[in-house]
Amino acid sequence: MSLFLTLTQDATATVDVATEVAKIKGDMGMLWMLIAGILVFLMQAGFTLVESGMTRSKNAVNIAMKNLLDICVGSITYWFVGYSLMYGDTSNGWFFWGGLMQGEGADLFFQTMFAATAATIVSGAIAGRTKYSTYIIFSLVMTAVIYPISGGWQWQGEGWLTKLGFIDFAGSSIVHSVGGWAALVAAFLVGPRIGKYVDGKVLPIPGHNQVLATLGVFILWFGWFGFNGGSQLAWGGDDAIAASNVVLITNLAAAAGGLGALITTWIWYGKPNLAQTLNGALAGLVSITAGCGNMTTGGAILAGLIGGVIVVFSIEFIEKKLKIDDAIGAASVHGVAGAWGTLVIGLWGVDGDKAIGLFNGGGASQLGTQAIGVLAYAVWAIALSFIVLGILKATIGLRVTKEVEIEGLDISEHGSIAYPGKRQREFDDN
Amino acid sequence: MSLFLTLTQDATATVDVATEVAKIKGDMGMLWMLIAGILVFLMQAGFTLVESGMTRSKNAVNIAMKNLLDICVGSITYWFVGYSLMYGDTSNGWFFWGGLMQGEGADLFFQTMFAATAATIVSGAIAGRTKYSTYIIFSLVMTAVIYPISGGWQWQGEGWLTKLGFIDFAGSSIVHSVGGWAALVAAFLVGPRIGKYVDGKVLPIPGHNQVLATLGVFILWFGWFGFNGGSQLAWGGDDAIAASNVVLITNLAAAAGGLGALITTWIWYGKPNLAQTLNGALAGLVSITAGCGNMTTGGAILAGLIGGVIVVFSIEFIEKKLKIDDAIGAASVHGVAGAWGTLVIGLWGVDGDKAIGLFNGGGASQLGTQAIGVLAYAVWAIALSFIVLGILKATIGLRVTKEVEIEGLDISEHGSIAYPGKRQREFDDN
Amino acid sequence: MSLFLTLTQDATATVDVATEVAKIKGDMGMLWMLIAGILVFLMQAGFTLVESGMTRSKNAVNIAMKNLLDICVGSITYWFVGYSLMYGDTSNGWFFWGGLMQGEGADLFFQTMFAATAATIVSGAIAGRTKYSTYIIFSLVMTAVIYPISGGWQWQGEGWLTKLGFIDFAGSSIVHSVGGWAALVAAFLVGPRIGKYVDGKVLPIPGHNQVLATLGVFILWFGWFGFNGGSQLAWGGDDAIAASNVVLITNLAAAAGGLGALITTWIWYGKPNLAQTLNGALAGLVSITAGCGNMTTGGAILAGLIGGVIVVFSIEFIEKKLKIDDAIGAASVHGVAGAWGTLVIGLWGVDGDKAIGLFNGGGASQLGTQAIGVLAYAVWAIALSFIVLGILKATIGLRVTKEVEIEGLDISEHGSIAYPGKRQREFDDN
Repeated sequence: MSLFLTLTQDATATVDVATEVAKIKGDMGMLWMLIAGILVFLMQAGFTLVESGMTRSKNAVNIAMKNLLDICVGSITYWFVGYSLMYGDTSNGWFFWGGLMQGEGADLFFQTMFAATAATIVSGAIAGRTKYSTYIIFSLVMTAVIYPISGGWQWQGEGWLTKLGFIDFAGSSIVHSVGGWAALVAAFLVGPRIGKYVDGKVLPIPGHNQVLATLGVFILWFGWFGFNGGSQLAWGGDDAIAASNVVLITNLAAAAGGLGALITTWIWYGKPNLAQTLNGALAGLVSITAGCGNMTTGGAILAGLIGGVIVVFSIEFIEKKLKIDDAIGAASVHGVAGAWGTLVIGLWGVDGDKAIGLFNGGGASQLGTQAIGVLAYAVWAIALSFIVLGILKATIGLRVTKEVEIEGLDISEHGSIAYPGKRQREFDDN
Repeated sequence: MSLFLTLTQDATATVDVATEVAKIKGDMGMLWMLIAGILVFLMQAGFTLVESGMTRSKNAVNIAMKNLLDICVGSITYWFVGYSLMYGDTSNGWFFWGGLMQGEGADLFFQTMFAATAATIVSGAIAGRTKYSTYIIFSLVMTAVIYPISGGWQWQGEGWLTKLGFIDFAGSSIVHSVGGWAALVAAFLVGPRIGKYVDGKVLPIPGHNQVLATLGVFILWFGWFGFNGGSQLAWGGDDAIAASNVVLITNLAAAAGGLGALITTWIWYGKPNLAQTLNGALAGLVSITAGCGNMTTGGAILAGLIGGVIVVFSIEFIEKKLKIDDAIGAASVHGVAGAWGTLVIGLWGVDGDKAIGLFNGGGASQLGTQAIGVLAYAVWAIALSFIVLGILKATIGLRVTKEVEIEGLDISEHGSIAYPGKRQREFDDN
Repeated sequence: MSLFLTLTQDATATVDVATEVAKIKGDMGMLWMLIAGILVFLMQAGFTLVESGMTRSKNAVNIAMKNLLDICVGSITYWFVGYSLMYGDTSNGWFFWGGLMQGEGADLFFQTMFAATAATIVSGAIAGRTKYSTYIIFSLVMTAVIYPISGGWQWQGEGWLTKLGFIDFAGSSIVHSVGGWAALVAAFLVGPRIGKYVDGKVLPIPGHNQVLATLGVFILWFGWFGFNGGSQLAWGGDDAIAASNVVLITNLAAAAGGLGALITTWIWYGKPNLAQTLNGALAGLVSITAGCGNMTTGGAILAGLIGGVIVVFSIEFIEKKLKIDDAIGAASVHGVAGAWGTLVIGLWGVDGDKAIGLFNGGGASQLGTQAIGVLAYAVWAIALSFIVLGILKATIGLRVTKEVEIEGLDISEHGSIAYPGKRQREFDDN
């Protein structure tokens, strides 16, 4: 009897080990996801610096206010409705007012940061001429409806793209290209800044602080390790190895993207250009965001490198051929490179040891699936942006008056200027 | 015999599982606390940017020197005497010269960052006219004596406020309001900046770089996830869920605080104001610092929102009614919002599933306890600051000469200027 | 029979516990190393800000481009050849094109960040007059050959310095002094900036933004917790305690270094100087990088304090006696303080409870070993830098023309300026 009891206890102990290990892995996964989400949060600071550094000082307050708004409105909207809409979890009703289920805190936090990122991409493209009140409404619709619905197609777990076999690990399409295409539509609808297209010529409007833009890119790169690495959503055993490789591969692609743009501008412009190298590094990051779990290191470098080259030509094309004034190249960095990063999985992606790309012998099937996803997100983001921004244009209007634009949005929209030293030399950098 | 031995071994194995799991949880907790402490460290950079961005360029070097001093002096002082004084652990004598007990490294590091935060809050309020040598002494007394003694009332574990049932999870009162009230006393004693109150009028003295101030707030927000989340002091199982929820709730309150101030200024000033939105986000963070373990998500949003509204009016009240020149609103952001954040637990706080607030049916008892704590920290911080700063005023003096103040502290106190381009247009932003 | 089976199962269970605990510790170690590597990445932003803040605005684009290049080229080069060369692991051939072995992702990522750091140290010293194309080649050789070969002497695990008993936990010599000595050689070979030495006088060339330099130092300090703490390469049990203490001790030494320089400049210049206090904090960090696993807290403070004093005098000595124009003091901060930090282990280092220093009764043996290591890294870095830069000087040249230097490198090397407001007052801060 005593012997029997002891054995029972031992059997329980055996079970305990597996259970406890699983629990600990869950705890470690939650720790990694939480820290990753914290890193992604800081990307909002990076976006603010890139956008404000690459545009003129007379609109720097407005840009700060837009980025603050994205995280403020986005956090509350996504908690209130976006998360439920995206993951189809209405066990709390449509929102989380009353509380959280066990363990949802880290996940909701992490996903919130993604929604805010999608919204904030639009901000830079339309800098310098867009009404603040209009922007608020669009940012709200973005985090409440546009991003969550299409995000659910893949990340909800049983969406139609998931069932097709679509791969988008951390959101080249789901987050970045949705933001990028919305930015393109917004820049088109709001129209170019005064002084951009004059007498058939395309004039450059240089930003006011390239050092801050550089800091912004470093901060974005830093946060991206959380963006991509945290998308493993777990830690321990194979997950730890996978997430580590994701971070390594993300860094390699970013580095290659920076080099790609640096070399391209050196050849094309005659000098290695800073603004484009910064865009190239960002494009490298966007290019690996979908495939960071499905690439060899060499494949990641190639994907990033090409992303960095593409972005330079894409910016020129949108600016000079389409004549759409995307103030910081957001549509190219997030939209075009996002599409490229999604497609490249079908070109030389791997799934563990298995090739799934056209060029590494995996056939054309994955490429087709990736193309469907790319197209679906593009159509969705472009259509919804047209509808929402079209309604806003027809009602409250998208654009400030000519006088306000020339003076800078900071004074009339926000009543202050960014650098009030002797009224900042009378805004002499008009 | 052999059978018996095997069973003994099994019994040991059973014990091992529980012990090993506990050890691993301890390790995970130490990892989280260490990383959280590292995040809190970066808040020093955030404070530097907010303070220097919101004040004039002629004092930017002085502000950098004060913030550097806070972490340099604070780290050593708190190690030398503060930690022992606060936690009553004198097993190493009064300081840690010889070494550390097992595992104390992460805790001492984490707690050090809190002490440095309390000290650094004072720095901004008295910007632009305070002697550097005087500031050093006050910063030293803050981290060595004022903060540790009152911190011990609650966080030592057996202090009188702990016994009363006072709740202040991460230090709305213990850290922020102590810093905020000291800032108020300091701003009162040192007197207003020249040009602030002229002929009965209250004149604005705008800061010199709102982009850096915005970056500073993002960095503070980022670090605050460590400040609040790390205060769980553990990871694994329920602790992992709790700490994750703390981070989520901290973000929601910050977002709501930013929105609260944004909307308030839009209604009140006619335009959404950046400086106040930044203060609102910070006030949202301070408002949830005490209650981040005792709030529903909805309750946290409401606490932050109200914190963001309060801070706008509090800044106006201190500036225009009390006529105390708090250069960056530190007393409102940390003192007033800190008191609010402590009290709100008594209004709609929860303890797990149990309501403990007046408005959610938990009775008035917790509110009374919270009020006692708020009062105790206010009285302590105000009294000690009056004594220490009063002695300094009567002896070495608090304030630089009129000539030094007009020229800027950077030249006479530190012998250099922040932006030496053509002597920075002769400091034309006087 | 059934009983026998059960017992077998139990025995297996017993084994499982130890195996699973070891696996989990491996997972936790990987998590810590990955996060630490992410922190170290951000140091690139810190270096960019320190270098650009401490030099003139007309070269700020060039500095951003050099620091971007270091991480872009360094990441790919170190992956391609550096890592294999350093750790002698050629199981993947010489590079990682095809893929990664299990778990190498976190380690390769972490080590890559160290290689990029060694390269980037050189950038600041030669700011304002060096050809960009030349810098690219030197940065590439640094991360591909110079740093990996000498790094392997100690960190490969079976190198000759390891066998001697040399201690350099996180790289005071291996990373920082190698970078610092290379910086000294480069500054010597490229020659001083125009306007530095005029008519036998040594003229100051102040930087253009001390606030950004301060932010840069805070970011470096933040990243250094990963640099030193992550070098434990493990987490769990004794490793968790050790890594925590490394972080604590790193902070204390940095704080002491800042104070050391602050006090030294106060006594020597009559005023506490910001630029030197920043250098002092960095010197404190470098001074504890070798010994952060072999110091008491008191010993660490003393090491950092002396490092902060040394750096002030070293900068003066190199500038005024050697007449080498190291634009930001990189050779002093990284080279001299790196040597000091390596030697100090032989003065008052400990190994667990055992004294190993000359002054704490551990004899002179460790000091001798440390001196050999310091010398070896100095000779290696100086010799290789002379050879590589000598060849570059004799071929493509190190230096831009006089006209380019006076105008600023940004325009002729990169075709843009950092702050294009009214062409930045015609670069009036020449």
